[in-house]
Amino acid sequence: MRKPHHAIVSIAIAALTAIALPTAAYSQAAVSYDELAKNEAAANAENGKRVAPVKSIVNPSNDVSSDMQAMIGAPFPPHFNADPKSASEWKELIERRAKLSIANVPTMKEKLGVKVEETKIAGVHCFIVTPNRILPENRRRLLVHVHGGGYVFGPGEAALPEAIMMAGFGGFKVISVDYRMPPDFPYPAAMDDAMAVWKEVTRTHDARRMAIFGTSTGGAMTLAMVLRAKDEKLPKPAAIAPGTPWSDIDKVGDTYASNEWVDNVLVTWDGWLGRAAKLYANGTDLKNPYISPIYGDFKGFPPTILTSGTRDLFLSNTVRTHRKLRRAGVTADLNVYEGQSHAQYQFNISAPETKEAFTDIAKFFDRHLKE
Amino acid sequence: MRKPHHAIVSIAIAALTAIALPTAAYSQAAVSYDELAKNEAAANAENGKRVAPVKSIVNPSNDVSSDMQAMIGAPFPPHFNADPKSASEWKELIERRAKLSIANVPTMKEKLGVKVEETKIAGVHCFIVTPNRILPENRRRLLVHVHGGGYVFGPGEAALPEAIMMAGFGGFKVISVDYRMPPDFPYPAAMDDAMAVWKEVTRTHDARRMAIFGTSTGGAMTLAMVLRAKDEKLPKPAAIAPGTPWSDIDKVGDTYASNEWVDNVLVTWDGWLGRAAKLYANGTDLKNPYISPIYGDFKGFPPTILTSGTRDLFLSNTVRTHRKLRRAGVTADLNVYEGQSHAQYQFNISAPETKEAFTDIAKFFDRHLKE
Repeated sequence: MRKPHHAIVSIAIAALTAIALPTAAYSQAAVSYDELAKNEAAANAENGKRVAPVKSIVNPSNDVSSDMQAMIGAPFPPHFNADPKSASEWKELIERRAKLSIANVPTMKEKLGVKVEETKIAGVHCFIVTPNRILPENRRRLLVHVHGGGYVFGPGEAALPEAIMMAGFGGFKVISVDYRMPPDFPYPAAMDDAMAVWKEVTRTHDARRMAIFGTSTGGAMTLAMVLRAKDEKLPKPAAIAPGTPWSDIDKVGDTYASNEWVDNVLVTWDGWLGRAAKLYANGTDLKNPYISPIYGDFKGFPPTILTSGTRDLFLSNTVRTHRKLRRAGVTADLNVYEGQSHAQYQFNISAPETKEAFTDIAKFFDRHLKE
Repeated sequence: MRKPHHAIVSIAIAALTAIALPTAAYSQAAVSYDELAKNEAAANAENGKRVAPVKSIVNPSNDVSSDMQAMIGAPFPPHFNADPKSASEWKELIERRAKLSIANVPTMKEKLGVKVEETKIAGVHCFIVTPNRILPENRRRLLVHVHGGGYVFGPGEAALPEAIMMAGFGGFKVISVDYRMPPDFPYPAAMDDAMAVWKEVTRTHDARRMAIFGTSTGGAMTLAMVLRAKDEKLPKPAAIAPGTPWSDIDKVGDTYASNEWVDNVLVTWDGWLGRAAKLYANGTDLKNPYISPIYGDFKGFPPTILTSGTRDLFLSNTVRTHRKLRRAGVTADLNVYEGQSHAQYQFNISAPETKEAFTDIAKFFDRHLKE
């Protein structure tokens, strides 16, 4: 019974050696490329599955800035497999990560020239993020931001980085919603808060001058907010920008497998991410469209711009959303960045790709929002 | 010296078992997900590279048609690692594959309602592909098609499938160029033929009513034709559709690694594909923009629509092209299909994704071509 086992291990060894890992130890077991090809062909002789060997993938060099390469080549984040066993363990992890995020906020505000004020809208804690310079065409426009973080990370000021980048790079005024999150507040608290803000703000602002945006969890919430606005007969935004949205909260979608252990931001659904999904859903069906908006009806959605990367664990979430929007007749734009893992277009304001991504979104909003 | 070797092999085994391959033999060596996560974290502790374990990836199920799933889950093609040692061995392989392609042409023509005529344009053998029903807005429009096949496959009628699909699904008249290829005619014969046809056709047709399209090698040629039209002061087409273009003919680009052995159409650059690249280039620098158009200047390009899939070996070729076009200020649209390997959107006219891809391209042409 050990034979098939051996066969596969030899593929792994073959793969390692064929790509010339710089370790002398592998050279003894070296097999040729042709042998690897034969092993792979044999492992893939059946229909319905794909077997890929161990891979060592170097950084992409072409068309990728050095700042971005540093992010792409970084080790996995220490918390990728965090498994908090209690509410207090979750809070400790959330707090620890929030501190790291918040530490960058003052420099970010200064470099991008924005100011931040706290407020309450419909009883929900929010930040108003205002750029020092608002372009004339943006004076009456307003964006609503829902932050990412797997429905657990990004409380308080830790929600701000993306809102600051959009305000700074795009020249828009932004309301960032500091929605309630697990462990204390599972679904539907986050969505209820976001919708309460949307409902309140659209009373005094023309929704044709408004957009909603967010990345990852914020991308899923952006989509789910439009679904709820449709269902609740509220005004819809004039455009949305769900960045690499967590549109299927379950491990469903091809790149959950193909980019597993390749994406160095989320790494795998089976780590903290899937645990946060279950904590948030709290027993609600993961296919509920307000939790996994890919299962919603996208008919009548406003123009949508999506962003992802070739190594993104959520590349499938992104392209499934893009295609479903197009199939529903919605104007939908897609940007996929070379080599980037999940949401890396928004982790470093110095990387040219960051400015590029936000500028592309800002141009899209400019095309679709009334002045 | 065997220790690091062992460590990596155990990752491989762990990966195999964690994903529960249906073979009892693996269960004895089973390690937990947590062990796999630890091994992977250790293997990825250094900057600048990514080590992914052996993977077994099942077919994507959601939003993917059963026809497309059958293609996605198929074994590697028998010729993926073909290594012809002489001109006659190349010809034998080319002929064998051409026969398979040509066998489908009559049914395709009938099902999609198109007729095919042979002709010579500027001395180059071409096919005129005409749909039985041309929409009124397309009556004066004309498309030029350059087929794919790594600059070696697709001679004669084997060039036709994509042209027939575009004519049939899109309702356009198409000229398909049966350009010369290696082993007898390396670079620049293919490009010279395509340009001779373009030059001749634009003498009698308004280029504002014309588009160029092609997939893979045809996608690279489409891009290179615009580069040459710019350089030679010829009219440019009103729009182009390079499908998953071979824009970098060398093994440069992230998904050449990340989707290697995952893409079940091209599989790896190191097989027939890279061998064909060298045969075609015939000593010319692989970074020559007429061979690898990603190194050309995209300023002034016409609106471009690109198509790829999440498992496509050329996903990076596609997105690098998309981004470079956007950076040059060009209108550029991107469609990426869930789970598809290279160009699978054009292998089966019954798959709904095939109709979808060609319809999207046709709509794009309709938006940008003069009536």
